[in-house]
Amino acid sequence: MVSTPDLVSGRALCVIGLGLIGGSLLRGAQDAGWKVRGAATSGADVAAAREAGFDVTSSVEDVLADAAGDDALVVLAVPLPAVVDVLAVVARRAPLCRLTDVVGVKQPVAAAVARRTPSARYVGGHPMAGTSASGWAAGSATLFSGASWVVGSDDGADPGVWTQVAQLALDCGAHVVPAGAADHDAAVARISHLAHVLAAVLASVGADGGPLAMALGAGSFTDGTRVAASRPELVRALCEGNRDALLEAVDDALGRLGAARGSLASTGALEATIRAGHLARQAFDRAREGAVPADTEHTDTEHVDLSTGGAFRRLREIGRHGGRVIGLQGTRCQVQL
Amino acid sequence: MVSTPDLVSGRALCVIGLGLIGGSLLRGAQDAGWKVRGAATSGADVAAAREAGFDVTSSVEDVLADAAGDDALVVLAVPLPAVVDVLAVVARRAPLCRLTDVVGVKQPVAAAVARRTPSARYVGGHPMAGTSASGWAAGSATLFSGASWVVGSDDGADPGVWTQVAQLALDCGAHVVPAGAADHDAAVARISHLAHVLAAVLASVGADGGPLAMALGAGSFTDGTRVAASRPELVRALCEGNRDALLEAVDDALGRLGAARGSLASTGALEATIRAGHLARQAFDRAREGAVPADTEHTDTEHVDLSTGGAFRRLREIGRHGGRVIGLQGTRCQVQL
Repeated sequence: MVSTPDLVSGRALCVIGLGLIGGSLLRGAQDAGWKVRGAATSGADVAAAREAGFDVTSSVEDVLADAAGDDALVVLAVPLPAVVDVLAVVARRAPLCRLTDVVGVKQPVAAAVARRTPSARYVGGHPMAGTSASGWAAGSATLFSGASWVVGSDDGADPGVWTQVAQLALDCGAHVVPAGAADHDAAVARISHLAHVLAAVLASVGADGGPLAMALGAGSFTDGTRVAASRPELVRALCEGNRDALLEAVDDALGRLGAARGSLASTGALEATIRAGHLARQAFDRAREGAVPADTEHTDTEHVDLSTGGAFRRLREIGRHGGRVIGLQGTRCQVQL
Repeated sequence: MVSTPDLVSGRALCVIGLGLIGGSLLRGAQDAGWKVRGAATSGADVAAAREAGFDVTSSVEDVLADAAGDDALVVLAVPLPAVVDVLAVVARRAPLCRLTDVVGVKQPVAAAVARRTPSARYVGGHPMAGTSASGWAAGSATLFSGASWVVGSDDGADPGVWTQVAQLALDCGAHVVPAGAADHDAAVARISHLAHVLAAVLASVGADGGPLAMALGAGSFTDGTRVAASRPELVRALCEGNRDALLEAVDDALGRLGAARGSLASTGALEATIRAGHLARQAFDRAREGAVPADTEHTDTEHVDLSTGGAFRRLREIGRHGGRVIGLQGTRCQVQL
C-alpha cells in the first residue's frame, strides 16, 4: 500500500460501505495516493479492512463528521435499499459535503439525495464492475481496471465535484463515461437488469426440465445463468429500483422472443433472431476493443471545458455516442470520441 | 500420444468430421488406446490433424470402407445439416457399421439414420462440451473431461454398440448419462437451445440501447450474450432441428418473462422471478457438484445388465433422475444414482 502522510488537497475520500465495491474503491484510491477512510455497518467488513491497515470505523456518524471537517469526497457504496438511511446521517453530519455513489441506478439515488440532503454537492457515479461475490474479502484494488465508470452529467452538476469523481475513476484505472441519470438507467436496464431477469428465466425453465436437464447443463447454461447466483435481494433492489426503464427493456425482450416463437412455429426458421443476436454481440465486442487504451494519434479527441455553458450537454452527447473522458486538467476534460 | 501398435478388438474408431468435437474425440480416444482414423471435408482440419500425426483423409468414402473392414465404431462428428450427406456415404460404404454421433439433437439424427442407412447399428451420443470456437485447432484431448455425455438408450439399442459408445465416453473422461432421444431433446431445448435464443435476444435488446449501452456492458451482459458469438449457422441448425421441444421451452420462457413483466408493472416487485431463478441456479450448482467423481462408499449404486429385458427402460429412468453410468463390465453397467 502507498502511504500518504500528507493530505493532498481535494484528494480526501470517505467511503461508506466496505463490501465488494466500497472495499475495492478504498484499496484502489489509496494506491493512487488518496487519503482514504471508511465506515460500514458490517462488523466483518470493518474488521477485515482494519486488519488490512485501513482507517475504518463502524460509526457512519463519526466518519461523516470527519469528512465534513476536511471536505472529503463522500462515496455511498451501500446497496440501494440502504441509501436513504445513510443519507439521513449525511444530512445530520455532513450536509454540505461533496457526494457521489456507486449504486447501479442513478435516478432513484438522485431523487433521494434531492429529498434527504439537498445541500450536498452530489454527482452520481456507477463503476460497471462486479462479480457475483460480495463483501470486503471479494474486493481488490484492481477491480475497476479497464471498466467503464459512469459519472453523472446532468445539467447543474458541480464542475469541481464532477472532476473529482472523474479523477477518482481514472485513478482506479476505469474509463469515464459521461451520462445523464435517465440515459444511464435506460442503458443499464438493457445490459444489466434485463440480463439478470433473463438469467433467472433461463435458470427456472432449465430446472423445470428436472434432474436430467440439470445434469446436461453445460457452457451455455452455466454462462447464461451465472448472475442468477447473485444475492437475490441485491438483484431485486436494482431491478425494482429501475422499474420504468426495465419495463421497456423487458417489453423489447418479450417482443423479440415472441417474434422468434412465431417464426419457429410458422416457418421453422430462427435466422432473424440468431443473426441479429450475433451482429449485436459483434458490435459489443467492437465496443470493448475500442475501450482498450487508445493510440491517441489515431483517435478523435476533443476538449470540453466544464466552466463553459452547455458543457454537460456536450458530455452527455459524447457518452451517448460511445465516447469517454480520458484525461482532466482543471475543469478541462480530454474526450475520446 | 499413446501409440497403439496392435488393434484392441472392438476399439477401432472412425471419426467423420475433424472440427472441435471430432478433433477432440480423435485425440482423446487415441490417448485412451483406441485405434483411431478420421476424415473431413475441411482441408484445413485434415492438414492440421495429419500434421499432428493422425491417420486422416479427405475421403469420407475411403475411410468408411476401411471402417467396414475392421468393424470400427463410426462417429458422425459433423454439423446437423451435413448428417444426411454423410449417411448416404455410410449406406454405400459401411451399411452395417457400428454408428454413433455427437450431434446436439437426437431425434432428427435417429430419424435420418432410420431412413438413410437402416441396417447400421446406431446408438446416438451427445457430449455436452464445446466452446464458441470451432475447428481442429480449437480442440483438445481433454475437452470432454468431466462433461456429461448422453448415450441414447431407447428400446432396441444394440447392447454391444451401446457399451462401446459408453466406453468411448468414459475413456474420454466424460460421465455417461443414459437418455432416450425424446428426453434428451426436451432437456437440451431448455438448457442449451433456449440459452442461445435468450442470448440472442439479450444481445439485440442491448445493442438497441446504442453505443452508450454497449459501452456500459459488463459481466452480466458479457456472460449472458457469450454464446451469441457462436457461428450463427450452427446455432440455427441445432435450434431449428429441435423445433418442437424448443417451442415448448420458449413458451415456458415467454410465460415466465410475461409474469415478471406483469408483476413489475403492477406491484413493482420481481421477487418471485429473481428468487425462483436463484433457487434454480443453486439446484444446478448442486447437480454439478454431484457430478464430481464420487466417493462410491457413500453413493447409491446399482447394476443394470443390458442383456436383460427392460434394461434400457431402467437406464432411461436413471438418467431422468440425474443418475449416470460410471463403469462397464461386459454388458453390466455400474450406475450411480
